[in-house]
Amino acid sequence: MKKVGVAILGMGVVGGGTYRILTENKEFFARTQDVEITVVSVLETNAERAKAAGVPEEAIASNIAEIVGNPDVNIVVECIGGTGAAKDFVLVSLQAGKHVVTSNKELYSKYSYELERAAKRQHVGLYFEASCVGGVPVIRTLLDGLQANRISSLMGIINGTTNYILTKMTEEGASYEEALKDAKRLGYAEADPSADVEGFDAAYKLSILSSLAFHTKVPFSKVVREGITNVSVEDVSDGKALGYVLKLLAIGKQSDEGIEVRVHPAFVRKGHPLASVSDGFNAVFVTGDAVGDVMLYGRGAGALPTGSAIVSDVIYAATHVDHKYSTFKNTENADKNVAFIEDYKSAYYLRISVDDESGTLAKITSVLGKNHVSIVEMIQRAKGEGKAEIVLITHETHEFAVRNAVAKINALGVAEIKSVLRVAS
Amino acid sequence: MKKVGVAILGMGVVGGGTYRILTENKEFFARTQDVEITVVSVLETNAERAKAAGVPEEAIASNIAEIVGNPDVNIVVECIGGTGAAKDFVLVSLQAGKHVVTSNKELYSKYSYELERAAKRQHVGLYFEASCVGGVPVIRTLLDGLQANRISSLMGIINGTTNYILTKMTEEGASYEEALKDAKRLGYAEADPSADVEGFDAAYKLSILSSLAFHTKVPFSKVVREGITNVSVEDVSDGKALGYVLKLLAIGKQSDEGIEVRVHPAFVRKGHPLASVSDGFNAVFVTGDAVGDVMLYGRGAGALPTGSAIVSDVIYAATHVDHKYSTFKNTENADKNVAFIEDYKSAYYLRISVDDESGTLAKITSVLGKNHVSIVEMIQRAKGEGKAEIVLITHETHEFAVRNAVAKINALGVAEIKSVLRVAS
Repeated sequence: MKKVGVAILGMGVVGGGTYRILTENKEFFARTQDVEITVVSVLETNAERAKAAGVPEEAIASNIAEIVGNPDVNIVVECIGGTGAAKDFVLVSLQAGKHVVTSNKELYSKYSYELERAAKRQHVGLYFEASCVGGVPVIRTLLDGLQANRISSLMGIINGTTNYILTKMTEEGASYEEALKDAKRLGYAEADPSADVEGFDAAYKLSILSSLAFHTKVPFSKVVREGITNVSVEDVSDGKALGYVLKLLAIGKQSDEGIEVRVHPAFVRKGHPLASVSDGFNAVFVTGDAVGDVMLYGRGAGALPTGSAIVSDVIYAATHVDHKYSTFKNTENADKNVAFIEDYKSAYYLRISVDDESGTLAKITSVLGKNHVSIVEMIQRAKGEGKAEIVLITHETHEFAVRNAVAKINALGVAEIKSVLRVAS
Repeated sequence: MKKVGVAILGMGVVGGGTYRILTENKEFFARTQDVEITVVSVLETNAERAKAAGVPEEAIASNIAEIVGNPDVNIVVECIGGTGAAKDFVLVSLQAGKHVVTSNKELYSKYSYELERAAKRQHVGLYFEASCVGGVPVIRTLLDGLQANRISSLMGIINGTTNYILTKMTEEGASYEEALKDAKRLGYAEADPSADVEGFDAAYKLSILSSLAFHTKVPFSKVVREGITNVSVEDVSDGKALGYVLKLLAIGKQSDEGIEVRVHPAFVRKGHPLASVSDGFNAVFVTGDAVGDVMLYGRGAGALPTGSAIVSDVIYAATHVDHKYSTFKNTENADKNVAFIEDYKSAYYLRISVDDESGTLAKITSVLGKNHVSIVEMIQRAKGEGKAEIVLITHETHEFAVRNAVAKINALGVAEIKSVLRVAS
């Protein structure tokens, strides 16, 4: 039986989950995958943490040189996170001829070109399933399951923290602050939640998934990004009343005009498969020219789901002799021939506070009409003290047209746009 | 660029879809997969059909020998169906050193051991993604995306015809006969629909998926099978009133006691991800020890979705140098050490016609109680002419206990069991 040695860098939540799966299931993998996988080394500055995870003292390395210089290590698993030491350690591991498995979305999104160059040079594998959507094998699916397709659209709920918060706001009417506090208490959100709630995490993942789906480099910097910090409970409940659920969506589309990539809160119609993806669950909805619509659903984070993706990559690296690299030019920047669309098309949800007097609605609809923004449905209600509120959903139109209309409506002096949210279609 | 030649056996719906994807997207595959794939030969007894699909006359082979003897053919795609010529042709292709891609669930389910033996001997690949769940890459996922997991359960809607029929019965109150007629008219059901409505098709697929998920041979003959031909619109609507949707489920479970594999109609609670899988869509819900719950959703049949799976396998075969085979003993029969559970556990739905007189319900509940069948919820209603109807849902209990209770209740002389359906949990 083939024997393979693994080193794990970092024994935090994900590293600990990976260690646990690899050690507890060692015999299971020998039986079902015909390979003996042993964790031979672990790098963790906090030795107590490694020991608490069950790592024997002699397996705790004191520096990266001990790992890259160890001939028994065939595969290095990076679970450090960030782009500092993680990047250096991955690079030296690849240069030393080790296969690398990483769960680091920021690292892979920003530096895949540099890492892949090093991997190619040494003919080793670079695996990153765990960087996107936890245990759901969406990267394997894009690489080895849907290659027959020209993918026109990819739409996902790919951040668990924000989905937990928005589910709480939708189902319990909690405010953003209350829901965030709850998410922190349960360990769904970090003390500084900005990477999640500002959409950075989803944008890293979207740049990775879009690059694979569209076969061209989609840099993180091209992703239009808007977080959920300004989402109000009024918007969530107004949308609900109209038959929509608010989600933080990551949307990638490719057409003859170019590519659009964006992360922002968006309403999804109830009944759409993504609408019922709740709490910490994630899902990616892909549309290909041959396969039609496909959805993958599962847990987007956590020690064991992410560990599942890492260990599946480790087994893949250990049992395949060939390693594929990007077939597109994997560079720092996008291909010059690819256009990125900023004035994309979408339907919109607007909440507008208005003076409750005759003629106001006519003024607003006139501005919308002039900007080619037409209305699908509308609710108006009195708010007292001479004020009223209008909530409306538009037909599909252009982003810039809506921005223009919003500025013009605000300038009327009789109305104030409270919220502008997109509606997925 | 690597050049690969493909032969397609059979130019029916799936063969035609495959031909179309391979020819229309040839440049796309060269650009995105770095391989030039050409359909060099097609075997089709109805030459007119091949010509109508756009195959040039010189590419139409007159017999299988022309294909296996053609050095330009590297990959043979089998789209004939059945286990007659399809089996012979696949075997001679493998023996001639060609990789084989098949969409034939019956062939792979019954003869994978024989085909795999031939493939191994010649070190060629045998791919069968298209045999299960159309374009949804569930086989790739089990093989290369979830290997880290001990899979305890696999639950799927894996037959499009029956799902179309049951959706029609659920949403429009159509009878089974009406819905079947409609399915035939739309091409969802064949003139002789028995392979679908009797659950054979789903059972073939379940035997394939369970073998991969549980890492042991699960022969088709071990699958407990019950079709949808006896499903009444009363059951569908009674279940609906209780918050359930009726589906033809394929269920595979593995525990320390053994393996259970079964295909039968079953109620799924509304809100479960499988409940909203409607019409021709399919989905597979997998539970693994590390990843938790994962669901894959998409079109389970059709020329292009199935063609997507075939062409993805063709690309995989063309771009990978290694080919994996079963790590379990792939023989005709199950491993002697594996127990197959017939007295499985499930919750149940019973519809009982009773004499509308005092004491009847007490007699029935007494029989149920003695057989350890306890009730979760119940509806009773008068049906006139001295008759009433009881609809009840039980807690989880054993199949044999329910069968025993049903026989005893029928023997009471005051009640008749009209329907026994399982409730998925």
